[in-house]
Amino acid sequence: MRSIMTRQKLLEAAKEVFLEEGFQRATISQIIKKANVGYGTAYVHFEGKDDILIVLMEGVMDQFYHIAETPFFPTSKEEAEQVIEKQAYAFLKMAEAERGMMQVFEQAIGISPVVSDKWKEIRERFIQRISKDIAYSQQNGLARAALNHELVARGWFFANEMYLWEIVRNEHQASVEDIAKTITAIYTTGLYL
Amino acid sequence: MRSIMTRQKLLEAAKEVFLEEGFQRATISQIIKKANVGYGTAYVHFEGKDDILIVLMEGVMDQFYHIAETPFFPTSKEEAEQVIEKQAYAFLKMAEAERGMMQVFEQAIGISPVVSDKWKEIRERFIQRISKDIAYSQQNGLARAALNHELVARGWFFANEMYLWEIVRNEHQASVEDIAKTITAIYTTGLYL
Repeated sequence: MRSIMTRQKLLEAAKEVFLEEGFQRATISQIIKKANVGYGTAYVHFEGKDDILIVLMEGVMDQFYHIAETPFFPTSKEEAEQVIEKQAYAFLKMAEAERGMMQVFEQAIGISPVVSDKWKEIRERFIQRISKDIAYSQQNGLARAALNHELVARGWFFANEMYLWEIVRNEHQASVEDIAKTITAIYTTGLYL
Repeated sequence: MRSIMTRQKLLEAAKEVFLEEGFQRATISQIIKKANVGYGTAYVHFEGKDDILIVLMEGVMDQFYHIAETPFFPTSKEEAEQVIEKQAYAFLKMAEAERGMMQVFEQAIGISPVVSDKWKEIRERFIQRISKDIAYSQQNGLARAALNHELVARGWFFANEMYLWEIVRNEHQASVEDIAKTITAIYTTGLYL
């Protein structure tokens, strides 16, 4: 019980420190101090700041993954389009809502090889899920069957991911709604019959 | 005359050092030594390794940009598709051919803010060019006019760029040909009438 609370305290303190300092400048000592736990105890839970960051990243990305997990059994092209546009919009909107931590994640991905590997693992999970949805649509005669569903899924995720980072960096010029609408229109018209 | 040769010697030496050491480990001293020029002379040409790297990156990316610059005045959807598939294929194939230096660039983009800014500038150049091609197709009644051509161009470039880095890292599972075919099919079917 106490152990779970200590872990939680460390995660909350880490979030604050990362948001204030960024990933590069943040130190494990700052996090332990802010969490107000003992050094020995802290290291029972986490090996270092990369380790804590990964747990925080998994937490945020699970929220994103919930969006990708929307039950997807469309019966028409129009229905598929509607669901996919909603998903793309929610995905990009969440990047906006979680901007602070997403900026920390982006920096960490660039610096830490273990965080970068974790990000790749998260990306593959999304791509596999999208891939499954495309295969379902192909099997039900809604989507062009000649296209390799995994390659299509990767391309689609890549476009979403790059827009996500633009939004995180506040570099996007258009509204999230216009971005989601436009990329979905190309994708669904290209894929669905 | 001698000045141009010195610059060239430095660029060639830098390429060798970067390929051997990677961007992070490479030092300006190693480059100057390999080029066999004086320190003072070297610093007349380049401020540091970031500076040299950027010139090398511009050189390689100019080759890529040549592909994007293919005259594009399609008269039908089929013609547009053919040209675009060729471009995507050539773009990804070149990533394979220039893998060594592209790996150096990827590392440098992650480490150096000036290199990262340069990469963004190069990306925008591609996107503006693609954007122009889309606008041309829309004006000529070949492509869906309701779509924002710049947002479409960004999404399309993003999918290509992410596949490019996968190829550079040797992480791609499918052939370059299959990748180019699949993403082009989605894109051109989605965009062209």
